[in-house]
Amino acid sequence: MEASREGAPGVRLAARIKGLAGSEIRERMKDLAKREIIHLGGGLPDPAFFPVEPIARACAAIFADPTAARTALQYAPSEGHPPLREWLAGYMASLGVPCTPANILITNGSQQGLDLIAKLLIDPGAPVMIELPSFIGALRAFDVMEPRYVGLSADLTATGIRERPRFAYLGPDFRNPTGTSLTLAERHALLDLSDALAMPLVEDGCYEKLRYDGEDLPSLLALDCARKGGIEQSRLLYTGTFSKTLAPSLRVGWIAAASPLIARLVLLKQAADLATSALNQMIALALADGILDSAVAQVRGVYRGRRDAMLAALADHMPAGVQWTEPEGGLYIWLTLPEGMDGGELARRALIEHGVATISGAAFYPIEARPNTLRLSFSMVPEEAAREAVRRLGLLVEDMMGVPAHG
Amino acid sequence: MEASREGAPGVRLAARIKGLAGSEIRERMKDLAKREIIHLGGGLPDPAFFPVEPIARACAAIFADPTAARTALQYAPSEGHPPLREWLAGYMASLGVPCTPANILITNGSQQGLDLIAKLLIDPGAPVMIELPSFIGALRAFDVMEPRYVGLSADLTATGIRERPRFAYLGPDFRNPTGTSLTLAERHALLDLSDALAMPLVEDGCYEKLRYDGEDLPSLLALDCARKGGIEQSRLLYTGTFSKTLAPSLRVGWIAAASPLIARLVLLKQAADLATSALNQMIALALADGILDSAVAQVRGVYRGRRDAMLAALADHMPAGVQWTEPEGGLYIWLTLPEGMDGGELARRALIEHGVATISGAAFYPIEARPNTLRLSFSMVPEEAAREAVRRLGLLVEDMMGVPAHG
Repeated sequence: MEASREGAPGVRLAARIKGLAGSEIRERMKDLAKREIIHLGGGLPDPAFFPVEPIARACAAIFADPTAARTALQYAPSEGHPPLREWLAGYMASLGVPCTPANILITNGSQQGLDLIAKLLIDPGAPVMIELPSFIGALRAFDVMEPRYVGLSADLTATGIRERPRFAYLGPDFRNPTGTSLTLAERHALLDLSDALAMPLVEDGCYEKLRYDGEDLPSLLALDCARKGGIEQSRLLYTGTFSKTLAPSLRVGWIAAASPLIARLVLLKQAADLATSALNQMIALALADGILDSAVAQVRGVYRGRRDAMLAALADHMPAGVQWTEPEGGLYIWLTLPEGMDGGELARRALIEHGVATISGAAFYPIEARPNTLRLSFSMVPEEAAREAVRRLGLLVEDMMGVPAHG
Repeated sequence: MEASREGAPGVRLAARIKGLAGSEIRERMKDLAKREIIHLGGGLPDPAFFPVEPIARACAAIFADPTAARTALQYAPSEGHPPLREWLAGYMASLGVPCTPANILITNGSQQGLDLIAKLLIDPGAPVMIELPSFIGALRAFDVMEPRYVGLSADLTATGIRERPRFAYLGPDFRNPTGTSLTLAERHALLDLSDALAMPLVEDGCYEKLRYDGEDLPSLLALDCARKGGIEQSRLLYTGTFSKTLAPSLRVGWIAAASPLIARLVLLKQAADLATSALNQMIALALADGILDSAVAQVRGVYRGRRDAMLAALADHMPAGVQWTEPEGGLYIWLTLPEGMDGGELARRALIEHGVATISGAAFYPIEARPNTLRLSFSMVPEEAAREAVRRLGLLVEDMMGVPAHG
């Protein structure tokens, strides 16, 4: 593609387009067609564990009932299919967030939630606080509204903050890309920071259900509801999705927040694409009401085993000086190479020379990039392939470090 | 809903939120639950004619094939399911727009196409040219990017234009809300204007297939491709959808444009919601490849009869001084009341006193509103109900005009 500012002869593009970049991950996903590659790149759920039969049965049941079929194919309300909003209000309550359907907006996956929240809260040039590194999809959604990023300080305080950020974006559980989680004390510190600055938090809850070890921790929104007496008193916006627990192409997610925020987000949803597919919402509801718990239990078991295999392989094959996270859930392990090494170079050589797809860590930093990092996703590869991929990566790292290979 | 700028305690909203309004149409759609109302309001396709059986069969076939099922439930490429892009390239070629899949982006209905085009082309405060009146959904999508609207002059020339608009938005066929179409000469005049100003046109093709009388006219994009030698030389962006021909809740539409524009729009699509549901795209493809032509022929027959019934009822029941359009296709008839009458008042009284839902015309004018107008949609009501609704409207108009009722 030609890199000029002009999209076609004589077409002037909006200023916001200048900063747009593609997602390295999405680009790498195109490699999926190439079978010989071992994919530690995209954070995709493994399609081998999609609940195909229950979804097929849900579809058949919808189309067998003429009233349901017409509802499924007609425009849904912009705020969402009412029974699914109702179900999600109960689900959020079960996670410690007492709420009503007026606190829920259905979105096309949690990615659309981030697009709508960016429109709601970001003026061009306004500061937005992010963890470093941060989920690329969130950054891409925010970028379109042209924020100025500021990094969340490691001590979670407001030290050095001169202007109140419009919000801070956080992934409390097994977050993309590092796999790390916030402790309970850190969650409380963030709520203190939010209160001190009167700053909303945007909580990405998409991995909340994918815990493999340890105990569930309450979401930031649940803790804030307990502090404030209810969701209507909270400044937090929570995004959730069925993409990681049921299947991504249902494209059904949600935002939970105080009802005046949801009311504005509904207008933005209407402007964005009128409504999420009623058919997809009805399928999601049928599964949520039925097999969600067993589907979650199944993928937890699979991904726990894959995580363990990859952690064991890293211990076996990575030379001294390389560090990695040990996530309690989610889909990702984050590698930190010795200072001075280039994760981008490692990712390129791993793909081209060794048939292993990964994502260089620098892509996850819009500011203050640490190029000696790499993200590995363990969701898509069976344990044997993961061990082989990590063995190849270990040899390549040794080669790049100038360490003699140990066989 | 509370009207303050603050969405919840302490939450500062982006400046763009100030101007946001709900769509009167979408609000009125909530009336659908009330069975006693006769609905001439929303421009919804009649669900009685959705191709339920073919869609059910397409779903069953997808889920019966393990490979297809996994593809249908996994993330699709942001640009769209490749075989559907391929099909749409052929379809656009059949409409006189020779193109390749690189000229097609799949969107969630044509509404999302308008959201993405607004992000691509509108800077805050930049002029955007629109027909008056214009489709509310387009205005809502554009509003989020904060343009300044300028009206397209009736003679389709650049007279009085001081600053080049970022684009002009047009519905050439049976457009929402008036039901009127551009003649071939007007289409050429618009392309002349586009060339004179080096101004892109955004062509809303969503009603193109719903013609009931007269001969098909080429789209603006088809005419421009013929003028320029190909889509890569064109500044036009075309939005299409299956919402009016198959079913809205497939949420499958597309943009056709020069490939450098599509490449940027793909990045915006990725940021907006990653991808349209693969399942929905595969269903749309199965139907497009199969029963699209017969589905279109069926709804054309139904809507032609409903249009004829409503036009006949208007001739029978409307007092002198009321004018209306006689559309050759689409879903809408546009009423112009005598100067000084208020279409908003008529719509309110029609709904409350007479159980007839309509949309006041003023909602379709972001500038230079003509309040003595009203939109009637004939798609959702059987002929007998349409006659009854128009009879009631006629009596109400006579009452408001102070004309003695003739019966």
